[in-house]
Amino acid sequence: MKEIERKFLLTKMPEIALQSTTSIRQGYISKSLDSVEIRLRQKGDAFFMTFKRGQGLVRNEAEIRIDETNFHYLWPLTQGRQVEKQRSQAPLENGLVAEIDEFSGGLAGLFLCEVEFGDQAQAETFVPPPWFGLDVTEDGRYKNKSLAENGIP
Amino acid sequence: MKEIERKFLLTKMPEIALQSTTSIRQGYISKSLDSVEIRLRQKGDAFFMTFKRGQGLVRNEAEIRIDETNFHYLWPLTQGRQVEKQRSQAPLENGLVAEIDEFSGGLAGLFLCEVEFGDQAQAETFVPPPWFGLDVTEDGRYKNKSLAENGIP
Repeated sequence: MKEIERKFLLTKMPEIALQSTTSIRQGYISKSLDSVEIRLRQKGDAFFMTFKRGQGLVRNEAEIRIDETNFHYLWPLTQGRQVEKQRSQAPLENGLVAEIDEFSGGLAGLFLCEVEFGDQAQAETFVPPPWFGLDVTEDGRYKNKSLAENGIP
Repeated sequence: MKEIERKFLLTKMPEIALQSTTSIRQGYISKSLDSVEIRLRQKGDAFFMTFKRGQGLVRNEAEIRIDETNFHYLWPLTQGRQVEKQRSQAPLENGLVAEIDEFSGGLAGLFLCEVEFGDQAQAETFVPPPWFGLDVTEDGRYKNKSLAENGIP
């Protein structure tokens, strides 16, 4: 099922209480024109490899957990296509949650925030709090894969 | 280090004693124009994922072992790009060994044989036994990846 999300730029980290901050780094073994996207991801002390192919209805996706040794062994294959960030949660009104990514490394200075909604109506009527910036939901340059390959837009 | 090998067609399995037959199946998650080759392989009861990128001096290759559950979960991603074969060894003269692949599934009827040499001179002076067929060492259509995608040439 497709997630209903909106994505916003932040100019800096909000001055509110954040929850459950996790270090994430992810890199892409595949390059942008490949038929399959292969992502390595470390989230805290868990390690994953994800395969995505196709788009829309024929999209298929598979994720496996790998061990730390294999992660470190394969990580160099993602050189030049890596993202590092700290992910935190911030509670919003109406039970919504802002998932905030503070990027580091080559993307230091970039802050993105995603909010997931229960349905399309809720997504459309959502009023962003004042600390949210530009809505970049439809801007492909802010996808992690694009940021990894091309840097900050 | 590059292996020095020659590859030959066989018209059928040789009528000599074979050693250590192993079931192999392998499939490619990547497609032929992708920047990285990703191969899944089951060899007996061991399971591997191999990444290959580039050619010649800048080629890099990485292999990890994966568990059976992950292998079965990922195997459908190789649909349409799969090879199944039985691999056996046959002793030759001068301590050489023929590694014989009897293909099955969509490649049934194909038999290939590889011999690995200690150096280039030995490879060039090697006299194939009578049961060897055409030398296809330089014929890319007999690479497993090509066979998987395109079938028997």
